[in-house]
Amino acid sequence: MSIEELLARRYRLLGKHSPLFYDQPLHLVRGKGVWLYDAEGKRYLDVYNNVPVVGHCHPHVIEALTRQVSTLNIHTRYLHENIVNYAERLTATFDDSLSMAMFACTGSEANEIALRMARHCSGGMGIIVTDFAYHGNTTAVAELGTGFMPEAANARNVRAIPIPDSYRGLNGLQGEALALAYADAVQQAIDSFAAAGIKLAGMLVCPEFANEGLLNVPEGFMKEAVARVRKAGGLYIADEVQGGFGRTGTHMWSHQWDDVIPDIVTMGKPMGSGHPISGVVARADLINEFGSSAMYFNTFGGNPVSCAVGMAVLDVFERENLLQHVTEMGSYVAQGLNKLQDKYELIGEVRHKGLFFGLEMVTDRDIKEPATTEAKRLVNWMRDNGILISKIGRYDNILKMRPPLIFSRDHADLLLSKLDDAFAEL
Amino acid sequence: MSIEELLARRYRLLGKHSPLFYDQPLHLVRGKGVWLYDAEGKRYLDVYNNVPVVGHCHPHVIEALTRQVSTLNIHTRYLHENIVNYAERLTATFDDSLSMAMFACTGSEANEIALRMARHCSGGMGIIVTDFAYHGNTTAVAELGTGFMPEAANARNVRAIPIPDSYRGLNGLQGEALALAYADAVQQAIDSFAAAGIKLAGMLVCPEFANEGLLNVPEGFMKEAVARVRKAGGLYIADEVQGGFGRTGTHMWSHQWDDVIPDIVTMGKPMGSGHPISGVVARADLINEFGSSAMYFNTFGGNPVSCAVGMAVLDVFERENLLQHVTEMGSYVAQGLNKLQDKYELIGEVRHKGLFFGLEMVTDRDIKEPATTEAKRLVNWMRDNGILISKIGRYDNILKMRPPLIFSRDHADLLLSKLDDAFAEL
Repeated sequence: MSIEELLARRYRLLGKHSPLFYDQPLHLVRGKGVWLYDAEGKRYLDVYNNVPVVGHCHPHVIEALTRQVSTLNIHTRYLHENIVNYAERLTATFDDSLSMAMFACTGSEANEIALRMARHCSGGMGIIVTDFAYHGNTTAVAELGTGFMPEAANARNVRAIPIPDSYRGLNGLQGEALALAYADAVQQAIDSFAAAGIKLAGMLVCPEFANEGLLNVPEGFMKEAVARVRKAGGLYIADEVQGGFGRTGTHMWSHQWDDVIPDIVTMGKPMGSGHPISGVVARADLINEFGSSAMYFNTFGGNPVSCAVGMAVLDVFERENLLQHVTEMGSYVAQGLNKLQDKYELIGEVRHKGLFFGLEMVTDRDIKEPATTEAKRLVNWMRDNGILISKIGRYDNILKMRPPLIFSRDHADLLLSKLDDAFAEL
Repeated sequence: MSIEELLARRYRLLGKHSPLFYDQPLHLVRGKGVWLYDAEGKRYLDVYNNVPVVGHCHPHVIEALTRQVSTLNIHTRYLHENIVNYAERLTATFDDSLSMAMFACTGSEANEIALRMARHCSGGMGIIVTDFAYHGNTTAVAELGTGFMPEAANARNVRAIPIPDSYRGLNGLQGEALALAYADAVQQAIDSFAAAGIKLAGMLVCPEFANEGLLNVPEGFMKEAVARVRKAGGLYIADEVQGGFGRTGTHMWSHQWDDVIPDIVTMGKPMGSGHPISGVVARADLINEFGSSAMYFNTFGGNPVSCAVGMAVLDVFERENLLQHVTEMGSYVAQGLNKLQDKYELIGEVRHKGLFFGLEMVTDRDIKEPATTEAKRLVNWMRDNGILISKIGRYDNILKMRPPLIFSRDHADLLLSKLDDAFAEL
């Protein structure tokens, strides 16, 4: 089927607004490791997709899925060993205080559980988020998307604080000063809730500010902000849907870069390397208190198949020593990106943590004018030349790269060489 | 691992409130067709689970899943044939006006899409539901669960109308009179919204009132109620998460028993026979209008694996002629249940549509005192004797039975004979 025909059918059956990547959409038919193949057999290096965290079609994950789906797939109102084995292995990657798990299917559902739990347990409704974050697509979670979700406009229980952007925002503050300015902004949100008679439930943020453009924040950044939230009776919810599962290297969870333990952690995307699984890991007292009144049940969440897949992903992390690999490979790629920054004026800032990279493109380094048009052209040039990346940010000018974690030195060299060509062409 | 040990680990890792069936929870390890097997090898006839709609571990579904998951699993921002092929086959089972689809992972997510869409497109916020319904577990959908969800207590944009229960409710009205009383209750909800200055968005109901106890409503029941909703500018959303996919026999969708076409239909549970898929089928203008402002994207929804599984389920419906089978087998089981009603005073009413059965148990047929204790004892007796059923309703006294649709005459005879024994023992 031609791309034109496929597009026409898609518009007719899914509508015109179902989002697609690239000026020329890609018709993919096969994936293996870090490679994707289109209908004409052309291959693409996948430097975008974080969901297939251990690589596309990893045999160990497929085998676990196939075995369990051929044996039993049933909801959690019956007992099954997989859910307890998986919950045990998963919670073992967290601080001891985060000892219980709940399972759902998507990141939106995980953040919904966290919101409901925080509101039940705190008795408050107010949630603090960072402006231009994205936490999901349900009504209550869409209200948190203050940058672009229509529901956010009338959300009286949400306060968004400015992005702690050391490159552009908060008066160019850096390091400790940036953390304190962020904490002050949190305090203003707390005070604003108090003035409106709204009790605080908590603060929900991605510790790496992934959707805000992967901001360059120092270790320990959240400490003072979380202290303010807790002093006001709120809970700290870390959204690890993007930053979790080793993405940032060194640690399994991005909040572990900070010297502060969340009360609730949400996770999703890479959890099943493509299989729809998500989860919440939280303090036992919060899960028990929420469960006693909310009677939460999720038909598909935590079923034996999902948990088998989840465990297979953890197996690969251990067998392939992925945390160390991500740390090493992240540094290697970052060195290459820094060299490109020396060479091309268009690269205003290089940010990275593990295998998560943000390149802020500007037309002028002094006035930091966003190079939105150039970023779009570059992303499409890369696609045409066999490398898949994307862009993000308020000005849509930050290159976003987060390949499957099995990304190797050869893949890195290919990415860097193509980026070099692309910037040279711009 | 012993059940005691498994339970202790589950309480420690998932908390004490993660719901479990039966006084003695079942530790299941294997499923095949309509049979489930526990850790000791004892087998159980599954007369409860609607999710494995074509039977546990159906080889055609497993094969489709395995093939696609070994080839490519990726989100819908790239083109893929599976999503358009599946959307085409799915929408073909609906009225021509319901021509577009959106995909998500759970019934809660499907109802979230419907709510957001109805509110966007109507410009209103008010939603009419039936009391004691359950539509899912996210904040906005939990607000619709006026019988038992804590969020419903303060939901100012929700009006619940009484259950149109011909056995107990609405002054014992039947047939046409019941439908008119229901429409009048809808009108009162519309008027109540108007008085509060809340614009109507629509009415969201399960056309079979599955969670309200599978009520005995006549064909065409919804017609007048929907007319009132539309006259007030609202949309009619049919929640087919339980009633859809042939469950009620004769038609693929339970709303097709009525002489009225919904504006939006939501579906989930049986859609992937256990794989986490859900969807919304709606009028094209609604999906386009919603999409233009909401930028809805679901990371796992509509991926090639989910769509392959969804198509495999539709294949089985066609190959095994399931709609006709459900209609025939439903009548056969219902005849047997009616005979049991003649024999046992405890059975106040037998309700059925296709392979969905509700038996209302009462201690006294004249005063209709709910036999809650007896229903609990009976469900547990059946479990101990190898038959899995459950119970539902405001008084938890309605036996709920909805087996996989491949349920045969032999299975039916076994069920009926065991029910006979169980009622004799009570």
